[in-house]
Amino acid sequence: MNIISILSKKRKKEKLSKDEIDYFIKEYLRETIAEEQASALIMAMCINGLDKEEIKDLTNALVESGEKLDMSDVSGNFIEKHSVGGVGDKVTLILLPILSALDIPAGKFSSRGIGIGGSTADKLMSIPGCRADITIEEYKDNLKNEKIGITSSLLDIATGEKKIYDIRRKIDCMDNLDLAAASIMSRKIASGAKKLLINIQCGHGSTIKNYKTGKEFARKLIESGSLDEKEVRCVISKIYEPLGRNIGNTLEIIETVEALKGNIEKDVKEVVMEVGIQIILMSGKAKKESEAKKMIEEVIKNGKALEKFKTLVRLQNGDISYIEDTKKLGEAKYKMEIKANKTGYIQMIDSERLGNIAVYLGAGRKLYDDEIDNQAGITLVKKMDDKVRSGETIAYIYTNDESKLKGASNNFLEAYTIGKKMFNKGSAVLGVMTR
Amino acid sequence: MNIISILSKKRKKEKLSKDEIDYFIKEYLRETIAEEQASALIMAMCINGLDKEEIKDLTNALVESGEKLDMSDVSGNFIEKHSVGGVGDKVTLILLPILSALDIPAGKFSSRGIGIGGSTADKLMSIPGCRADITIEEYKDNLKNEKIGITSSLLDIATGEKKIYDIRRKIDCMDNLDLAAASIMSRKIASGAKKLLINIQCGHGSTIKNYKTGKEFARKLIESGSLDEKEVRCVISKIYEPLGRNIGNTLEIIETVEALKGNIEKDVKEVVMEVGIQIILMSGKAKKESEAKKMIEEVIKNGKALEKFKTLVRLQNGDISYIEDTKKLGEAKYKMEIKANKTGYIQMIDSERLGNIAVYLGAGRKLYDDEIDNQAGITLVKKMDDKVRSGETIAYIYTNDESKLKGASNNFLEAYTIGKKMFNKGSAVLGVMTR
Repeated sequence: MNIISILSKKRKKEKLSKDEIDYFIKEYLRETIAEEQASALIMAMCINGLDKEEIKDLTNALVESGEKLDMSDVSGNFIEKHSVGGVGDKVTLILLPILSALDIPAGKFSSRGIGIGGSTADKLMSIPGCRADITIEEYKDNLKNEKIGITSSLLDIATGEKKIYDIRRKIDCMDNLDLAAASIMSRKIASGAKKLLINIQCGHGSTIKNYKTGKEFARKLIESGSLDEKEVRCVISKIYEPLGRNIGNTLEIIETVEALKGNIEKDVKEVVMEVGIQIILMSGKAKKESEAKKMIEEVIKNGKALEKFKTLVRLQNGDISYIEDTKKLGEAKYKMEIKANKTGYIQMIDSERLGNIAVYLGAGRKLYDDEIDNQAGITLVKKMDDKVRSGETIAYIYTNDESKLKGASNNFLEAYTIGKKMFNKGSAVLGVMTR
Repeated sequence: MNIISILSKKRKKEKLSKDEIDYFIKEYLRETIAEEQASALIMAMCINGLDKEEIKDLTNALVESGEKLDMSDVSGNFIEKHSVGGVGDKVTLILLPILSALDIPAGKFSSRGIGIGGSTADKLMSIPGCRADITIEEYKDNLKNEKIGITSSLLDIATGEKKIYDIRRKIDCMDNLDLAAASIMSRKIASGAKKLLINIQCGHGSTIKNYKTGKEFARKLIESGSLDEKEVRCVISKIYEPLGRNIGNTLEIIETVEALKGNIEKDVKEVVMEVGIQIILMSGKAKKESEAKKMIEEVIKNGKALEKFKTLVRLQNGDISYIEDTKKLGEAKYKMEIKANKTGYIQMIDSERLGNIAVYLGAGRKLYDDEIDNQAGITLVKKMDDKVRSGETIAYIYTNDESKLKGASNNFLEAYTIGKKMFNKGSAVLGVMTR
């Protein structure tokens, strides 16, 4: 076996065997395969595709390329929730305490986010004192004792996945569903998840542009999971506009606390409920959707979910007084109104553009080592289907860097489509896919 | 413009603009584009193809990537002959003196050969004293004064082509016609050729496996040439068996001298005549094929072609006594008969296998710095369509390394198909393609 014959096969759109895929990942990590050859093969895979067995074989090869975490002592029912794409997505932060309040172990590996979608860890760390870098042992203890936890201290899992991911970024193969499926599944399997709930968000802010692609991607994820006897479910939702009202770390923490108090935006609620229901069903804590729905509503109503959020903040070394009074989190020094330039209905809000404006304001990283301005971000006063008058305030932008106000406000309205007819966006949830 | 958007376009099978192709080559050479990105783009080009404008644009970008040689002072009619593939191909060595005897400047850039097809320079350098590394100035003087010359001292022409070629070897994109056309044309244009005759050889010993592919390749070469107002003609010939009787440097020199004396093998003659006729027509020295044919026959008959071969050897610092008496070139220490294992007609001789056996015997290089055993090689006693009896000698192998005899002879007959019916190979020339 050699890399030239493997390159030759995939170039001609032939199927690679398990041995060939294993050989590629193993030898690439041993550096007997050159970077040029690895990236050419990834490009050939990207253009000519992988079938479901190849995706499974690549997933397994990537799992075997690093250490594996054993989560079986936490709970046989430990369920990971993963989200693909999404500007303003605070669903994980809202769901973890809800599930934990229902006695379902709710943990999350999360590290620094790059680009328009800030990570769960980034959001949490905007609370004074909060740390994501607690050890794996502490994290597992927290899950056992309090059923909740977050850590960025991942073992050296799926080593090959990181390298393949880097190549994909360098050669523009990020939106390839086959490679993305193997990438996500390998990280999740290696990190010990037995069941997986994946929220695929379709729209401008995501690499998955529409529902059709979302379903295709869900199918690939479910198939590569079920071949390893992992239960995988996918909730496909829309991100035709940012999720909820707020974009930016502190702003999203405030929105999360409000949501856990019951003041939850319609679209956020739709996704939280559907993802939550599916996880509860997978956990076996409920048999029917209606039952699961009631359970969620109850722990919000009786305050148990909010208490669990405070527990999470405490476990991560954070100061819960900032949660008890979110005004303490403060507001950015500079705030500016954005006014509509037209009268009509908001028909579309381009999440990707707003995500990029939020990054520009300081709310996200362009590079791994960039500093984040936690208070920077955007609040949407009006959302899709809202009627606006020309000159009416539709959003606020926040930053601690005055020089960013002008650039951000000048480009802001380009993200909006305002027209005479209502778009009628419907539910944020498009569908659920199971095995 | 950036490499990510270029990768994205070619990955999606979109056409690249001239600016994008120029940018790629320029920035790759400036090392602002990573090796991984360059090789991924080459793979994408290889899978998704280039149209005729893209091939032309890539050719030009490669020409501009290095120095350019000006051959206009040698003759406006200077015609390069290039050959693609071919085990036992000594056509160039036979043609140069024929053309030179007809007062057509007959020069050749030729450097070390790697693999089964030895280069013209390698063959010539097997004559004691011969050097290919004469300077460009000497080479041009030789062409002006004697109308004949060979040099390996190429300027740093088409620098980008060398790098792209190296990538293609590493990632198994050698048989891609679009990239091969741009590669050949850029080197030829940069080395100052105004007119080009390309001999495309189809069959086992070549990357071009059949006549259909040969014609497709010819079309690409002609188009990318004509877009630059270069006249390009292609002679497509067969290499269903090695060309002529001998494979190996000294053996091919002997066969060349015999050919120039008029003792020329049928298949070699067919290719020499067709390629020669086309070059003479391009040069304007004759108007009709029959006229050109007579001119070639005459300079062989009257000994002028052989004289010019001696001139070539002398100009390259070689000792012409070895040409006057080729027995002086000597024979390898070890010689072994190969006998047929069946009675019947030889229906096929796999050139690629015999080429590899010749390399194994020492007649060719596996790596750039390998030493060549000039006397090593193969003589074919019987060729396709010849009737053989089981036990009859069909070939001889030669080497100065006794240890190679066994391996070479054990595998030799695998290259042969012997059957009851004659194959009827017909002419070695399949066709000629012009603009």
